[in-house]
Amino acid sequence: MDGISLEELQLATRNHGMPLEALAYDVTPAGLHYLLIHYDIPAVDAASWRLSVGGAVGRQLSLSLPDVRARPEVTLPVTLECAGNGRTGLEPRAVSQPWILEAVGTAEWTGTPLRGVLEEAGIADGAVEVLFTGLDRGVEGEVEQPYERSLPLEEALREEVLLAHSMNGRPLLPQHGFPLRLVVPGWYGMTHVKWLRAIAVLTEHFEGYQHSRSYRIRQTEDEPGEPVTLIRPRSLMMPPGIPDFLTRKRFVDAGEVVLRGRAWSGLGAVVRVEVSADGGRSWTDAELGSAASRFAWYPWRFLWNATPGEHELCCRATDSTGETQALGPSWNLGGYTNTAVQRIAVTVR
Amino acid sequence: MDGISLEELQLATRNHGMPLEALAYDVTPAGLHYLLIHYDIPAVDAASWRLSVGGAVGRQLSLSLPDVRARPEVTLPVTLECAGNGRTGLEPRAVSQPWILEAVGTAEWTGTPLRGVLEEAGIADGAVEVLFTGLDRGVEGEVEQPYERSLPLEEALREEVLLAHSMNGRPLLPQHGFPLRLVVPGWYGMTHVKWLRAIAVLTEHFEGYQHSRSYRIRQTEDEPGEPVTLIRPRSLMMPPGIPDFLTRKRFVDAGEVVLRGRAWSGLGAVVRVEVSADGGRSWTDAELGSAASRFAWYPWRFLWNATPGEHELCCRATDSTGETQALGPSWNLGGYTNTAVQRIAVTVR
Repeated sequence: MDGISLEELQLATRNHGMPLEALAYDVTPAGLHYLLIHYDIPAVDAASWRLSVGGAVGRQLSLSLPDVRARPEVTLPVTLECAGNGRTGLEPRAVSQPWILEAVGTAEWTGTPLRGVLEEAGIADGAVEVLFTGLDRGVEGEVEQPYERSLPLEEALREEVLLAHSMNGRPLLPQHGFPLRLVVPGWYGMTHVKWLRAIAVLTEHFEGYQHSRSYRIRQTEDEPGEPVTLIRPRSLMMPPGIPDFLTRKRFVDAGEVVLRGRAWSGLGAVVRVEVSADGGRSWTDAELGSAASRFAWYPWRFLWNATPGEHELCCRATDSTGETQALGPSWNLGGYTNTAVQRIAVTVR
Repeated sequence: MDGISLEELQLATRNHGMPLEALAYDVTPAGLHYLLIHYDIPAVDAASWRLSVGGAVGRQLSLSLPDVRARPEVTLPVTLECAGNGRTGLEPRAVSQPWILEAVGTAEWTGTPLRGVLEEAGIADGAVEVLFTGLDRGVEGEVEQPYERSLPLEEALREEVLLAHSMNGRPLLPQHGFPLRLVVPGWYGMTHVKWLRAIAVLTEHFEGYQHSRSYRIRQTEDEPGEPVTLIRPRSLMMPPGIPDFLTRKRFVDAGEVVLRGRAWSGLGAVVRVEVSADGGRSWTDAELGSAASRFAWYPWRFLWNATPGEHELCCRATDSTGETQALGPSWNLGGYTNTAVQRIAVTVR
């Protein structure tokens, strides 16, 4: 890896990852879930906050936080992952948030289904997308903008898409989008717009910065590429044993070691997790547990007979679409969706 | 700044800082307080956890979490800062956690005074220090060790030193030391041992790794240097206006702008905060508010008449010992206590 620049470090000290030992928890404790925040975290006054619902609708809505909280409520465990997770594994590397592998977390999100709100407003004929605009504002690629992303109408109407006011049973923390955020189970994190202030039904395709310039899989600036959408399959392992402070290299006592981790995919169910103790040359199936919801990660475990010496531990997931993580990365300009297998160097003593 | 290495990045993606817009809060919300964790975050079973109190005492104690929670309880707002905050401002830079300026936070810590526990155990004649050992274990400088630090007996007996079980009114989060941590108001963060498992009264000076090798102010490896102890004065400003995503450079509208921030010192009261809009050539006093406790940060504000063009905003604190932040850094080998003034590049439009 080439040296990280000051610009990347500024992002890394703000946007924290989930330390991988937190894979131990079914639901990621507050403060350990990953964060990716494009601009600043707004400090929102809940009393004056309103969500406007407009655009191509029968009647505009303006909802207060009590209005939102009084609506039908669903709680759903959902694994969120940043589309840039694994970015530093690509060479050359896009200059952005320099994730290694830790941009993930699972929370129990509580909120009201978006569909009910849209139906109350009345979706006009000709509607094709729904635009979500946050209170966070900044400059990106020389364009001043609020953070905003759209969803195809059919995705927005999925029953599990939530306007979430709570996370793990408590009101959203400021950094997770207080007072209200979008949760679109299965999609990468850029879709889950935080600090929502407006929802607009659109009759045309939205071409904002976060669609046309960011979050596209492409090889050059000149090609349009494909949009980043659903989370591709990935598995991660809790690094076993104890770490070296600086190198994070692991030391493990010889003998039977239970390796544990999580696997997830937004494309379908996780159907298989395999473990390799020889850097990916040979693979053995791990024992796969069940997920708390069809959008939450799956626990897995593997009994490893650790023999003295140097080892490289790897894991890989396969989902119900048949996609399996590759041994190495597949490069793209923005550094997105690098799901190449995790590699953990371990000294067994 | 030279490029950040993979080793430093691995630490930066684990040990998150407080985004500086969170200077808005008197008490830092959960998940925004800075974290510096040497090894892994232990997942502790509260039911089987015990705190042992031993060494040079009249009788050994073994306390359960209910035992600790049944003791007299104090809540105290305390500002914690990492001794390595500002490290990347030093050249050459110690290879460790690459903080810029964000390694700070203020929490309301609730716990029982350490003094009462030590008195119940009975401090033997000849006691000079108290050693605190955490459940976290790792390798550092080729030495396998639990994280442990000692305090001089007279510091350990200060009435405001707490064995804290709660943070901001809730049980400690795993990453902040659940179920119990030490809080030593005024001292840099390395002192506040997390995941406490043992307290031992010592009749000799403790020479562990985190005292003799780490956390010393020195110019070369050959000199003993001086230990890092109390927090030196620092002030920080909430970056005004809106950011550029990548550079974090700020854009501000011309006119009157309220600049706000916080200042703190473990050496004494903060008596003055000054602001410069010209990179430190001229300074004007800011309006200084009052702190929530004598160990918590002070709010400050400054009305700035922002005129179109490029500006470099700075702030500096002075405490009751007369120490004022310097314009530039004072180098040391470990990259500790660099309190050189913050500089924020702002374009006024």
